Amino acid sequence: MDPNMDPKTLSQSLSPSKIHAAHTLIKPYIHRTPLLTNKTLNSLASTPQTPDALQGTPYEGQTPAEPKINFFFKCENLQRIGAFKARGAFHALLRLIEEKGEDEVRQRGVVTHSSGNHAQALALAAHTLNIPAYIVMPSISTTAKIEGTKTYATKVVFSGSTSTEREAVVAEVQAQTGAILVPPYDDFNIICGQGTTGLELEEQYLELVRDPRLSVHGASGSGLDAVITPIGGGGLNSGVATFFSDKSTRVFGAEPSFEGADDCRRGLEAGERVTSVKSLTIGDGLRTPVGVLNWEVISDTKKVEGVFAVTEEQIKAAMRLVLERVKVVVEPSAVVGLAVCLYNEDFRRIVEREGGDKGWDIGIVFSGGNTTVEAIGKLFS
Amino acid sequence: MDPNMDPKTLSQSLSPSKIHAAHTLIKPYIHRTPLLTNKTLNSLASTPQTPDALQGTPYEGQTPAEPKINFFFKCENLQRIGAFKARGAFHALLRLIEEKGEDEVRQRGVVTHSSGNHAQALALAAHTLNIPAYIVMPSISTTAKIEGTKTYATKVVFSGSTSTEREAVVAEVQAQTGAILVPPYDDFNIICGQGTTGLELEEQYLELVRDPRLSVHGASGSGLDAVITPIGGGGLNSGVATFFSDKSTRVFGAEPSFEGADDCRRGLEAGERVTSVKSLTIGDGLRTPVGVLNWEVISDTKKVEGVFAVTEEQIKAAMRLVLERVKVVVEPSAVVGLAVCLYNEDFRRIVEREGGDKGWDIGIVFSGGNTTVEAIGKLFS
Repeated sequence: MDPNMDPKTLSQSLSPSKIHAAHTLIKPYIHRTPLLTNKTLNSLASTPQTPDALQGTPYEGQTPAEPKINFFFKCENLQRIGAFKARGAFHALLRLIEEKGEDEVRQRGVVTHSSGNHAQALALAAHTLNIPAYIVMPSISTTAKIEGTKTYATKVVFSGSTSTEREAVVAEVQAQTGAILVPPYDDFNIICGQGTTGLELEEQYLELVRDPRLSVHGASGSGLDAVITPIGGGGLNSGVATFFSDKSTRVFGAEPSFEGADDCRRGLEAGERVTSVKSLTIGDGLRTPVGVLNWEVISDTKKVEGVFAVTEEQIKAAMRLVLERVKVVVEPSAVVGLAVCLYNEDFRRIVEREGGDKGWDIGIVFSGGNTTVEAIGKLFS
Repeated sequence: MDPNMDPKTLSQSLSPSKIHAAHTLIKPYIHRTPLLTNKTLNSLASTPQTPDALQGTPYEGQTPAEPKINFFFKCENLQRIGAFKARGAFHALLRLIEEKGEDEVRQRGVVTHSSGNHAQALALAAHTLNIPAYIVMPSISTTAKIEGTKTYATKVVFSGSTSTEREAVVAEVQAQTGAILVPPYDDFNIICGQGTTGLELEEQYLELVRDPRLSVHGASGSGLDAVITPIGGGGLNSGVATFFSDKSTRVFGAEPSFEGADDCRRGLEAGERVTSVKSLTIGDGLRTPVGVLNWEVISDTKKVEGVFAVTEEQIKAAMRLVLERVKVVVEPSAVVGLAVCLYNEDFRRIVEREGGDKGWDIGIVFSGGNTTVEAIGKLFS
């Protein structure tokens, strides 16, 4: 793909077959993470909220919805480096090698600016494929994140924390080394890589429900009705929506509402992408505005049916349930989709109305698990 | 099996084929929990401890061992009710139905005394199979445990906290209802049920290492060299050792050393089972002495090669690594086997000596994940 093509045209090339091709390419390098089910969470989600929970919402005084929900949790928190980002990073580098040849890519190296999971993912992929990686990180990043990135990165370069400061340092690195920029989400190959999460989710769902042990897992019998993923920059959501674009499975997005981190939801409402976000939501992977190419996909109602927001308290409550009931470690960003299913009355009414007695089988992507025991302790103290 | 048979004779009937038969029976009711790998933990375990870590041990001043270890984590923390105990409970009840007929078992019901995972497992299995379950719990149990058990149990009956007090209440329940006692570990059918953990571990290990994506997981190429499980009452360890008894895979046990909770290790040293333990180790599932039938298996050196102990600090360090790196939620009891591999110099010397350059592929059973975010916070505050 020509990265200089205009986003609208480029987005039209994002097709399910591109996700299949990406999966073939990255499969040897990534984990096929487990798909988990949980009867307790199904039963909680299938119980109406209390009237109290609706106070202060537009549904105050109304009867709470009673949707029937079966969850299928795709555990990308158990992916390499602890997040789905490994998929996009491996895919972007393997495509770079295809396009420019091993020699050129190995000589020039790659660069990105990120303080989070994308930096670690790119460093791992580059290390595995013998490519130098320069990671530009704000000097205020936590020691754990810096150390985690240093494990694989050729070089960690520090910058100021505004995006202007970071981009200046990236430009400097590029001038010195010729390194190729691999953006975290607003990129055709990154989107295709992240979309493989949806491909595996569907494959594993079908394996599970065709298993004679159906009763253990619970399923509506009507196929995978919906998939919901977090939206930060939108790489994961636009990739997954691309994969499902020729299927009956609906795709939704989820965001924190805190301090306007629900930029994508607000943008859809206003009919225009919101380009800047300043939120300190606990969902720290979701503080970025949705990318340009990602927006082309997500704002296409044939691909993404809707985006819903949840509060910090709802994120914490969902995180507790995942840790204590599903028993996997998730970062707050990872559970916004589950929080929507449990607590967002708009969404729950849709499921009640459209799912009826049979209910919906909903795939939830747990996007990452990079946190610490201290952070967990602090969140629930 | 006649439960009144003497333990030595009974233990001779514990054979791999009994574990296969148990697996066929319980398969529709349990999860085939994931087997996870983790390169960071492989690399940590394959790095010598610091000389400081050996201070105050018999190895002080010597060169720390440098074993080569690849881990395969069997996640029974993701089993139904959050622990392997679901296997034994379903197996025991399905055998009871086979032996006594549905009508009799449904009329009489089952009873057990436990404040932990066995109670929840038995309640779930009984509920699923339509059998009344009476669970005797100490009245000082945490609200969370009582609520968890009440979800499925027909009746929770409270008792004092000593074993005499609990047994008196069990006898009372039996006199009133005719309920059949299902013990937590010292029982032929319970042992066979727990042993299915070993069967799946081997199956999934073979699936993984025969996968072309070998490089992602790491493996010695010599097959599963060892399996290590926690030992409390010994149900899991004796079951797993039974399954591997005709194979080259070695089985080991792990216990906390705190306040003598390493009763099995001490018993093996003394040549006699230790019958009473009073320890408040953080590995609260491992505070019981090993059972009589379990001891017959574990003290057979052809079945279990050795039992090793770890300190509370080592358990906490291993738990942190599992939460932060493997990203699954474990209770402290679940990680004693991993702690042995990382920190027990006796064990590490065996692996170094016998595994050589190729190293060992070690199966680790994470036995359970029943904890709370508050407990995690407190442990690491």
